[in-house]
Amino acid sequence: MTGAAPDRDDPLAFVRAAFDLPEGIIYLDGNSLGPPPRAALEALSHAAAHEWGRDLITSWNKADWIGLPMRTGDRIAALAGAPEGSVLCADSVSVNIFKLAAALVNAGAPAVAVEAGDFPTDGYILEGLSRLSGARFELLEPGAGPQTACEGGVLVKSAVHFRTAQIADIAAEEALAARRGVSIIWDVSHGAGVVDLNLAANGARYAVGCGYKFLNGGPGAPAFVHVHPGMADRLDQPLSGWMGHADPFAFADGYRPAPGVARFGAGTPAILSMTALHAALGVFEGLDMAALHAKAMRLGDVFLEGAARLGLESVSPGRGELRGGHVSLRHRDGYEIIQALIARGVIGDFRTPDLMRFGFSPLILSYDDAAQAARILCGIVESGAYKDPAFARRGAVT
Amino acid sequence: MTGAAPDRDDPLAFVRAAFDLPEGIIYLDGNSLGPPPRAALEALSHAAAHEWGRDLITSWNKADWIGLPMRTGDRIAALAGAPEGSVLCADSVSVNIFKLAAALVNAGAPAVAVEAGDFPTDGYILEGLSRLSGARFELLEPGAGPQTACEGGVLVKSAVHFRTAQIADIAAEEALAARRGVSIIWDVSHGAGVVDLNLAANGARYAVGCGYKFLNGGPGAPAFVHVHPGMADRLDQPLSGWMGHADPFAFADGYRPAPGVARFGAGTPAILSMTALHAALGVFEGLDMAALHAKAMRLGDVFLEGAARLGLESVSPGRGELRGGHVSLRHRDGYEIIQALIARGVIGDFRTPDLMRFGFSPLILSYDDAAQAARILCGIVESGAYKDPAFARRGAVT
Repeated sequence: MTGAAPDRDDPLAFVRAAFDLPEGIIYLDGNSLGPPPRAALEALSHAAAHEWGRDLITSWNKADWIGLPMRTGDRIAALAGAPEGSVLCADSVSVNIFKLAAALVNAGAPAVAVEAGDFPTDGYILEGLSRLSGARFELLEPGAGPQTACEGGVLVKSAVHFRTAQIADIAAEEALAARRGVSIIWDVSHGAGVVDLNLAANGARYAVGCGYKFLNGGPGAPAFVHVHPGMADRLDQPLSGWMGHADPFAFADGYRPAPGVARFGAGTPAILSMTALHAALGVFEGLDMAALHAKAMRLGDVFLEGAARLGLESVSPGRGELRGGHVSLRHRDGYEIIQALIARGVIGDFRTPDLMRFGFSPLILSYDDAAQAARILCGIVESGAYKDPAFARRGAVT
Repeated sequence: MTGAAPDRDDPLAFVRAAFDLPEGIIYLDGNSLGPPPRAALEALSHAAAHEWGRDLITSWNKADWIGLPMRTGDRIAALAGAPEGSVLCADSVSVNIFKLAAALVNAGAPAVAVEAGDFPTDGYILEGLSRLSGARFELLEPGAGPQTACEGGVLVKSAVHFRTAQIADIAAEEALAARRGVSIIWDVSHGAGVVDLNLAANGARYAVGCGYKFLNGGPGAPAFVHVHPGMADRLDQPLSGWMGHADPFAFADGYRPAPGVARFGAGTPAILSMTALHAALGVFEGLDMAALHAKAMRLGDVFLEGAARLGLESVSPGRGELRGGHVSLRHRDGYEIIQALIARGVIGDFRTPDLMRFGFSPLILSYDDAAQAARILCGIVESGAYKDPAFARRGAVT
């Protein structure tokens, strides 16, 4: 297929114009760092020069900086299928996992678990929480799920796996978890903005996620935390900084948690970074997450079809199958191939030891982009062009 | 005094040109939110449009985003008198207090203490840590210091008090602390960039501080954490996210801390906000912190002298006395007076229940500014202009 026909019929093709993308590249790394929507650059520039530079301290009220974490959270709630007021934008995924898991430990969870091979920081944080709190740390088998986690414990699990793009069945896992009193904290970092998470309908009670991947919030954009409205007021969140206080500007000596998910605030939010994320989320308004997910999968299919003749092993679900927004192919020289692709304007990323990841943001990519990227990949692999010493490994980042 | 003579002789007067300040205001709130240095706005704009927008994911290496937390930390180390490599820029003050205090609890500290009336989030965080870890939480008398803290415990204490601007004698408190095995975590939020902290020479081992006050890093700028080089490798920091891992991009299942203060990293840093802070810190290069502090105190003296006829109680050290960069005056109608001042272009802030705070950033203010602000304050108080209903209290922020 050439990709020409589906692009002409793509009802999402217009969205690309909302982005400021460099000429001459095919960006397949929106799963790692999404590109800037124009509105994000404009909002950031306005926040810096005008809100900070002209209105200074008064912007906490005048520009509603103080409300920005909940306003940003509400935009995320809308695309993640969570109720309004149930998502707070704050801190990083790592810190938010700590807050949620620690609150559940405070509520009596005897253990905190993660599956081996899941996104590493999730486990690192639980190890740290375990050492501090005495809750047992469990490293489960890959894909083991809540049925093997400790009864009454916590399981942190990716909704979309960072290597494979495998999508977890949230509703099914929650049903299993309920039988054993396990609380699942869903890490939706690789799913938010590309998969129809439908958190409430699927029964997810706790989630964290990242703002800089498919949400396009900018490098290191603040993360978010979701707590089902019925649960938040029962949770004692121990990273209890002043931004989670019921009345931070009372400057009282004793901590009193804010109602709802707002109690998951800790320190003063990074307003400039959060402003970029808030504006970036505006791109999703009016778009249907199911349609975005369908396009992302079809983009991946076009790519896999174009690269099929290379016979590379895919660790992701294959053509026509359900997966998240990226596709991971295995090659011993994956690092070098990714460098050679970048040199030719096709930007994917590499995950040690041998995975080439290609992200298919449905907001910015055409089917022709996906087909062309596959053609360039085939050319590089078949010609051996990646063996050029210029592409040799020196260390990889992100 | 008119202020004219000292301004002519002020060797720091040139620094103001580095800032982008609105016309017609006297900004006395640099203790709460510093104004933007031009270099910060430029760096932010470049980072957004070029590093993010053009170079995308490659900027983690190309623009050294990955090294930004330590590079920014080094600029803070230089002005705080801490060794190179001993300061990491990361997260918020609240989160960094948690990391440090929790690491010390992991090392055996039986209790965590704060003085009543110190900056509230410091105590809130220790309360949370206490509930999670079992370490005892102690609320000490104001100014009680390490001699009343639990032996072998942790004390979080402001180097400059947020209400009074009282400066702690770091060296003396550390000597007292050493006798009782108390670890002091210095909260230098209201001191960094305006007081000559001299952390190493004064024997401070642990410190946290904020990037958005006298450091001018922008609203909610990332905070920082300092650990004396000899101590960092012994600390088990439980907010152990991937950015504190010795090799984050190995994506290994087990946590292995980075050497030194880098192990206090947790999640992905907010690059846009941190870029603004990093550039803002460039303003301090080549400036002498002792000279900056002397100017800040003299500015406060000029203000206090000009306002002396009002006979308001100062909760700060008075004219000619040692204090940090701000001055706090008490008035029953302080809120309304601050609003009336803002309406006349003099921007200070209010701290409940009755404190008017005026910050004297030596980077941006002239002695004439300080004298004029005092004249305007006198006019408002003496005329009763602040009783205008337009200035009535509706809730105060920061």
